[in-house]
Amino acid sequence: MKNCIVAQSGGPTAAINASLAGVIHGVLNHPDYDRIYGALNGITGILEKCFLDLTDDFQKEENLERLKISPAMYLGSCRYKLPVPEEDIAPYEFIFNVFEKLEIGAFFYIGGNDSMDTVDKLSAYAAKINSSVRIIGVPKTIDNDLCVTDHTPGFGSAAKYVASTILEVFHDVAIYAPRSVTIVEVMGRDAGWLTAASVLARNEYSAAPHLIYLPEKPFDTENFLTDVNRLLQEYDNVVVAVSEGIRDKNGEYISASSGSVDHFGHSRLSGVGKTLEYLIEDRLNVRVRSIELNILQRCGSHIASLTDINESFCQGKHAVSLAAEGKTGLMVTLLRTSDEPYQVACDASPVCDIANKVKHVPDAFINEEGNDVTDQILPYLKPLIQGETHVAFDQGIPCYLPIPHLL
Amino acid sequence: MKNCIVAQSGGPTAAINASLAGVIHGVLNHPDYDRIYGALNGITGILEKCFLDLTDDFQKEENLERLKISPAMYLGSCRYKLPVPEEDIAPYEFIFNVFEKLEIGAFFYIGGNDSMDTVDKLSAYAAKINSSVRIIGVPKTIDNDLCVTDHTPGFGSAAKYVASTILEVFHDVAIYAPRSVTIVEVMGRDAGWLTAASVLARNEYSAAPHLIYLPEKPFDTENFLTDVNRLLQEYDNVVVAVSEGIRDKNGEYISASSGSVDHFGHSRLSGVGKTLEYLIEDRLNVRVRSIELNILQRCGSHIASLTDINESFCQGKHAVSLAAEGKTGLMVTLLRTSDEPYQVACDASPVCDIANKVKHVPDAFINEEGNDVTDQILPYLKPLIQGETHVAFDQGIPCYLPIPHLL
Repeated sequence: MKNCIVAQSGGPTAAINASLAGVIHGVLNHPDYDRIYGALNGITGILEKCFLDLTDDFQKEENLERLKISPAMYLGSCRYKLPVPEEDIAPYEFIFNVFEKLEIGAFFYIGGNDSMDTVDKLSAYAAKINSSVRIIGVPKTIDNDLCVTDHTPGFGSAAKYVASTILEVFHDVAIYAPRSVTIVEVMGRDAGWLTAASVLARNEYSAAPHLIYLPEKPFDTENFLTDVNRLLQEYDNVVVAVSEGIRDKNGEYISASSGSVDHFGHSRLSGVGKTLEYLIEDRLNVRVRSIELNILQRCGSHIASLTDINESFCQGKHAVSLAAEGKTGLMVTLLRTSDEPYQVACDASPVCDIANKVKHVPDAFINEEGNDVTDQILPYLKPLIQGETHVAFDQGIPCYLPIPHLL
Repeated sequence: MKNCIVAQSGGPTAAINASLAGVIHGVLNHPDYDRIYGALNGITGILEKCFLDLTDDFQKEENLERLKISPAMYLGSCRYKLPVPEEDIAPYEFIFNVFEKLEIGAFFYIGGNDSMDTVDKLSAYAAKINSSVRIIGVPKTIDNDLCVTDHTPGFGSAAKYVASTILEVFHDVAIYAPRSVTIVEVMGRDAGWLTAASVLARNEYSAAPHLIYLPEKPFDTENFLTDVNRLLQEYDNVVVAVSEGIRDKNGEYISASSGSVDHFGHSRLSGVGKTLEYLIEDRLNVRVRSIELNILQRCGSHIASLTDINESFCQGKHAVSLAAEGKTGLMVTLLRTSDEPYQVACDASPVCDIANKVKHVPDAFINEEGNDVTDQILPYLKPLIQGETHVAFDQGIPCYLPIPHLL
């Protein structure tokens, strides 16, 4: 019987612990595997030999269920990028030495694009040294920008947060008779999936967000002002969803405008939300406010998507099955077979086809003017935010699984 | 049989529609009253004769229940301040003329401090002209800064949002090994109640927020940097809750520092969160981020406090009882008789004792250093965030009562 290691890496999401729970559940219930170790702070936990033995704690169904709906990363994260082995072989030797000592049969790495690069490198190295350790990637990112897979764990929950919040924001801003513009800045530097998901806020009484701008299309400030002005003829309270990563036709971030000065004398950059707020304040005669959803959109586990949480759990379990079948160098993917009824199945793909690539929102999902999404995106997005988890509350506050190293 | 008018005013909360539901329920179930009209956009709805007849729609229990948990203001708001009658009697004559035509027996005004000023003026005028119309104020404000009443409707829900969000933010920031500081800016220009409520985020594994700064105490930037530095010796990830209204010892807002320049050439003011973020960036060698909770903290109905919603509803109903008993010029208040078990009763107080005054966080609730609250505040705060409402979701998005003028 072999043991397994699991680790988490990159930025947090509301679903990455559900994937972890899936891996743990998979290992605990597989006859080929014995213990499951968690490396703290990603791959650096292996390099520093910082492990938690998760085996006994998560025999308790209750702990596993609570882990599934707890935000961020139970095992902590890192932003460490493995050097290529030709440049520095030492970390590889160290890692596989640890694997041997702990009698590891499989290593599961839950993360985004950079983490898949690590999976790619480790599996290639394992092949080179004829190691039997299986290396499997489990995706996560609120950005939904991984290739091959239909969508990524964490995206659905963030999308549900963004759309629900924009509906609530619209209720808030719609109370005053004077006209107003509200800019909502959504995460997503290179891909606009999460901003695009704001379209799900629209309903029979609210057209908010009235404008949606993604990084996939060049942003033109004059066209933007024209769009806002036009909508203010039709609506009293205009809400704009804008991706943090929008750029002008020269590829310059819109956020790169005037700001205060830091201690080096460099101008500080305002985020795109504030930048557009100032632009409207200067150019249009209307009340304006900007809201940065900030990290709240990725840690708001109390309004996670049940679909997302369940799928993330399944993908964690699937990773274990793949390793047990002798597969390696793969990332778990989701294959959609139908929009309505929504049907997906777990699948897998060589991680080298996925790492270091970005899946953008396709042209068919963006309108010609570049200021909205098309209806074609709706069947893709809608299923991903369905269902609600039921977070327990203790004394009025969500009751999450305690962060282990802080207890 | 007489009719009634109800209106809402000031900034929105997650509970102000629960108070409206209470008023509607009270009127519909009182033998002395017939129809209930809603004036749109506060007192301006009366001045412009913009009314909704709420009587029939809210006979349906289902609509009333959905109204209770919908964010912001069903009837819309205004920021209109009545002139004193000595200066301009016209609006008074107009309003009481409308009252007469609609056979109004009572006017209920749901709002904060400014709205209570309106209640005060209208009831004084009614007495002067021997009008039998009863004028009753129903409080609301996330700021919790109204005098006489134990606490205000809307505060508990905002407090639950702030504390829950700070716990989630802590999970998010605690994932990285490198030290970090996170500044969370909370609403409250003059009174620090809502920022103080962030203390409820603390639990057995999280001491966040590690520092709490209220407008009630002068803020000293050097002491602040010393506090942060000291805490970074003890904690990897320090979270600071800070009220938007903190001021230095000369009464100047901390937010008044450098910013970009508007089209008049005036320096734009950064909010306090950004200001402290820049300060830490310049002076301490640590990663820093600021989060402005913005209007999300007052419109986040999906995580409202059930205690708050229920109490707001009761206060609306109580307003109707008071009017029916012939009382006028009163604001409904809450009288707490016990912390544990938590017991409150509806009461009322002359609005002139309440209008245009501010209830600050008392010294006993703030520590000597002015960088935290004391444990004494806990029995006061804790009961107010207890219980969860159950917002229905439709297609993955909260299902609120549609905004009437947008349908």
